[in-house]
Amino acid sequence: MPDTLTLDPRLSALLLRAEVDAFNTAYCAALDAQKLMEWTEFFTEDAFYSVISRENFDSGLPVGLIHCEGRAMVKDRAFALLKTAMFGPRYLRHMVSNLAVEAPRADGSFEARANYIVFEVLTDRPDARILQVGSFLDVFRRVDGALKLASRRCVYDTLLVPTALCIPV
Amino acid sequence: MPDTLTLDPRLSALLLRAEVDAFNTAYCAALDAQKLMEWTEFFTEDAFYSVISRENFDSGLPVGLIHCEGRAMVKDRAFALLKTAMFGPRYLRHMVSNLAVEAPRADGSFEARANYIVFEVLTDRPDARILQVGSFLDVFRRVDGALKLASRRCVYDTLLVPTALCIPV
Amino acid sequence: MPDTLTLDPRLSALLLRAEVDAFNTAYCAALDAQKLMEWTEFFTEDAFYSVISRENFDSGLPVGLIHCEGRAMVKDRAFALLKTAMFGPRYLRHMVSNLAVEAPRADGSFEARANYIVFEVLTDRPDARILQVGSFLDVFRRVDGALKLASRRCVYDTLLVPTALCIPV
Repeated sequence: MPDTLTLDPRLSALLLRAEVDAFNTAYCAALDAQKLMEWTEFFTEDAFYSVISRENFDSGLPVGLIHCEGRAMVKDRAFALLKTAMFGPRYLRHMVSNLAVEAPRADGSFEARANYIVFEVLTDRPDARILQVGSFLDVFRRVDGALKLASRRCVYDTLLVPTALCIPV
Repeated sequence: MPDTLTLDPRLSALLLRAEVDAFNTAYCAALDAQKLMEWTEFFTEDAFYSVISRENFDSGLPVGLIHCEGRAMVKDRAFALLKTAMFGPRYLRHMVSNLAVEAPRADGSFEARANYIVFEVLTDRPDARILQVGSFLDVFRRVDGALKLASRRCVYDTLLVPTALCIPV
Repeated sequence: MPDTLTLDPRLSALLLRAEVDAFNTAYCAALDAQKLMEWTEFFTEDAFYSVISRENFDSGLPVGLIHCEGRAMVKDRAFALLKTAMFGPRYLRHMVSNLAVEAPRADGSFEARANYIVFEVLTDRPDARILQVGSFLDVFRRVDGALKLASRRCVYDTLLVPTALCIPV
């Protein structure tokens, strides 16, 4: 088997891209299955996580619908949501595409972005509706070899949001 | 050209993933083009194919909207649909993302999953509507070198379904 | 580092597919950010660009909503749109999936296709709506090493279209 270090750099980039793609797929699967505690494991200890409107983001306003500094805050939020059972009576389904992964910096961290849709199906409505459309703006870092989110900003295009949108994305 | 056997195992995994991705793209293109007989060729002779609600699937209920054991049943269904011309007056468009491919077992078969959306455009309505959102839960197997579906369960999130949903996904 | 020429051809195909995927992601990002002049750089000088209904396309009718022969026409269109400020009061978001890339011909050009969704969010409406669903039917060519679109036909499934649809896709 060829040594990793001798890999064509374009193949290394391809492998990293595939790793991020698999990360996002697992991340979305955890949210779609409502496994919120598992979801928090996708972040570093000092992770930044926010859900913010495209309008505010473009204007440089830091005010977001969700704003967490550190995984402890992410866990608090997940725990609160599980207690209120807000998650229960709906099905969610994430679709991610248009993934772009930047070249890693000297410390191994790197930026990435992707577009997402979140569909919601309520138990008393026949149709799937589009809950949110937007972009993940990410910084990834390796912790013990595994990719983790050091920062994920979910920038959504929809300007008004129903109450249900306070769920993580 | 390097021998396939000496490929970095991560590259082998990447190639397999790309092969499944291409398979799903061709599978969806056949359905979108209403080439139902071509569509049946994506299955093994003993294939299992079902379209089932997430609610029933999560409860372990086997009852699905469509339930086919063996390609002969899949073909029967396709043939019946072509005769009723149910397919005709609408356009369908599949979008697949969030693909995850598991490592092959000793016999070469492997599991995979992906999320899908099916859009429908009726000839007398201006807008595209979301016909179905859900997940493919698959088992692939090689037949004469080519990938085939030994099992595909289409688990849809939408709870109520219009009549038109009896079409394959 | 292994020489490119000695790459397993399946890996070469994978790299090309990744390059097209990155191209489409950058192309969509330019449109979503309303950077229309940047968008025109994705085409060759003699590029063909059209937006045409699936109905007309399937019937072999060349009549499209947008029809540009050469990048000069593409630029004219972009410039006109920027002046009318039609782009302003809405957010767009593209999602691309189901990418298929054909093997390059002797001259290095090759065909590709993909499915797309364009979401639109109007500033005075709370929800994202589906502006267009369809397929990119493409011919790519290399210019000074970089991929460019020699031809892109955007074949949309939706049969009736609001005025806003005169924007590029």
